[in-house]
Amino acid sequence: MPNAFYAQSGGVTAVINASAAGVIQTARQHRRQIGKLYAGRNGIIGALTEDLIDTGKESARSIAALMHTPAGAFGSCRYKLKSLEESRAQYERLIAVFRAHDIRYFFYNGGNDSADTCLKVSQIAQALGYPLQAIHVPKTVDNDLAITDNCPGFGSVAKYVATSMREAAFDVASMAKTSTKVFVLEVMGRHAGWITAAVGLADDAATPIPLLLLFPEIRFDEARFIASVEERVKRFGYCCVGVSEGLLNAQGKLMAEAGTRDAFGHAQLGGIGPQIAGLVKDRLKLKYHWAVADYLQRAARHIASRTDLEQSFAVGRVAVEMAIKGRNAVMPAIARVSDKPYRWKIVEAPLAKVANVEKALPRDYISKDGFGITDQARRYLSPLIRGEAPPPFKDGLPQYVRLRNVAVPKKLAAGFEV
Amino acid sequence: MPNAFYAQSGGVTAVINASAAGVIQTARQHRRQIGKLYAGRNGIIGALTEDLIDTGKESARSIAALMHTPAGAFGSCRYKLKSLEESRAQYERLIAVFRAHDIRYFFYNGGNDSADTCLKVSQIAQALGYPLQAIHVPKTVDNDLAITDNCPGFGSVAKYVATSMREAAFDVASMAKTSTKVFVLEVMGRHAGWITAAVGLADDAATPIPLLLLFPEIRFDEARFIASVEERVKRFGYCCVGVSEGLLNAQGKLMAEAGTRDAFGHAQLGGIGPQIAGLVKDRLKLKYHWAVADYLQRAARHIASRTDLEQSFAVGRVAVEMAIKGRNAVMPAIARVSDKPYRWKIVEAPLAKVANVEKALPRDYISKDGFGITDQARRYLSPLIRGEAPPPFKDGLPQYVRLRNVAVPKKLAAGFEV
Repeated sequence: MPNAFYAQSGGVTAVINASAAGVIQTARQHRRQIGKLYAGRNGIIGALTEDLIDTGKESARSIAALMHTPAGAFGSCRYKLKSLEESRAQYERLIAVFRAHDIRYFFYNGGNDSADTCLKVSQIAQALGYPLQAIHVPKTVDNDLAITDNCPGFGSVAKYVATSMREAAFDVASMAKTSTKVFVLEVMGRHAGWITAAVGLADDAATPIPLLLLFPEIRFDEARFIASVEERVKRFGYCCVGVSEGLLNAQGKLMAEAGTRDAFGHAQLGGIGPQIAGLVKDRLKLKYHWAVADYLQRAARHIASRTDLEQSFAVGRVAVEMAIKGRNAVMPAIARVSDKPYRWKIVEAPLAKVANVEKALPRDYISKDGFGITDQARRYLSPLIRGEAPPPFKDGLPQYVRLRNVAVPKKLAAGFEV
Repeated sequence: MPNAFYAQSGGVTAVINASAAGVIQTARQHRRQIGKLYAGRNGIIGALTEDLIDTGKESARSIAALMHTPAGAFGSCRYKLKSLEESRAQYERLIAVFRAHDIRYFFYNGGNDSADTCLKVSQIAQALGYPLQAIHVPKTVDNDLAITDNCPGFGSVAKYVATSMREAAFDVASMAKTSTKVFVLEVMGRHAGWITAAVGLADDAATPIPLLLLFPEIRFDEARFIASVEERVKRFGYCCVGVSEGLLNAQGKLMAEAGTRDAFGHAQLGGIGPQIAGLVKDRLKLKYHWAVADYLQRAARHIASRTDLEQSFAVGRVAVEMAIKGRNAVMPAIARVSDKPYRWKIVEAPLAKVANVEKALPRDYISKDGFGITDQARRYLSPLIRGEAPPPFKDGLPQYVRLRNVAVPKKLAAGFEV
């Protein structure tokens, strides 16, 4: 019976383990097609170093608990395999490990880079005459994968940032008379403003909020920004700002890096959030507060989107179904069937069309003044954050599972340095 | 029929509106004792400027919705009345406004400073021969009020920071092999380490986390801290750090302020969180991430503690009951009846014993090495975060109420400048 391999790659999300659950549970339902399902300890590094985990040692209950456990249960890694020429030794090592453990299915759960790696693994296997089916399982909070309508992991971050900004706005509104008038929230998304756009959902017809968004797509114009903050504070008494960590200055440089140095000459550690807040203070003499959510936003399983959770599970499940159907170098992608009511299905995307392509935030999702989102953006984003799926709580805290992660005995004599 | 006045003071919380609901709903049940219930727009400033809100114009449904709405529905303020001598004009103005609107009950919802103001208002009324009963309704995320076993507002922040740190720890553990090894979360609580201690709940027997806490009570010892981070990263592969915004250096200065300046000579905007992260990078060359939750932690109604919510409502309700019983210069305080099972009741505290007293974090709540919490701390903290009470969601977002806040016609000819 051929075995399978699954690994998590790159930055983790609140729901990537739901994809793992989808892969594992579906593989367990197809024991006549898939023997053992191994996971890579710390992603692809686990495959390279032959550090495999036997997922068969985990109880059905533990695997079910992955549905409500954030981050990567097997460990992830930031390790990019380059071109077949540059990284030939790594690719060949992967095939050697797969061959040693009779692994014929390769499930790789990641973003753009991983889709590329997954494609190359499929190609090298073919070149070496090793029968391997490589299926990419999409995941990224950045929401920038091609073909798929949205990316598993994004909806939960979107729900977190919109909820957090709405809550903070209520706080600032309470304090604005004598204290804080401007609140700045820095969010992730270095290359594309998908998460920044999601902050815009905090403000809607039922709950209007004076909100300015600073997208990585729109170069920062300090004078216009300051004038807009001033106008909103005058009109509403306060102003909220959502800023992308990837905001660029007029010269196209990352503002978080182009910036200031401390007394020792080190680049200032504060990110763009505190920088923007400082500007407001310098130019307008207004009291401000700022928050940087950082990992909190992508780990926040307690406020995950049910839609996101279901889709994350589905791409894992369908990845295994595609493998069993003999597919190779493909990715289960989410296709939107309708906006209202929101309906979606999983379709097959060829990896060649996904690898290394970044899906940009459409310009018509950003309002004309560059500081907000349009109705098109709302129509797209709104369904992705719908539904709640809280984890079980005990004594006031969410109960997350840790797997046993039992190592598979090594079969190769040679080790491998990564 | 005598009227009543209610105002929110100082930094708001996720559940201060539950206290407002307790006051308003209970007053409505006692229409023979309490005529109108007015609220101050933006706290005590509303009283000083005769900017009163008629809470009678709000529907029962809106008042019920305060139970699940964070921040201050009537607006709060940071405005400290000083001694009777220094601020005599303000105190007399308050009595003039109360007299004009036949306000005989004064409910003041705040922390230490407000308890002091509430006591002084009671004293000046007596001195001026105006019949007023002043009842303080406790609230502060800082948990530093005397007599009361804990403070409404604190349990929800505690639940937020413990949940967030647990989630971030799962994230860092996933990434540590090749990327982030140290995660720093900055939390509120400038003078006392109650919130810092609550971060410690993230780590427990069922879910151990290598976690270091930096309390405002323990002066920062860089060498010991760095050695401890290094040791944990060696043993566990990663380390999490919870740091109070009020951390002091060896000289007893606030580290967030004692610090570095940017290229323009401005004090560095990043708070203590990024400072600590920068130290880890400089000394250990480890990859780090940091988050500053700021207002997110105290506005996070979506993850409020049910215990906190119930207690916040109870102090509002009992405040009105005390008023009706003729009590004056008192505060409903929470008394802990037992730890296991956790039982509590509301008792009466004389304001003179609450005003201007700060309850410190007991030294035996902090572990010997200064970096963690003890079993005593856990016994105290754990019940306060128990139970969930999520707000209603619509289209993926929490639905929070905004009141109509209809102004009461002014009766005084003279205005008042604050």
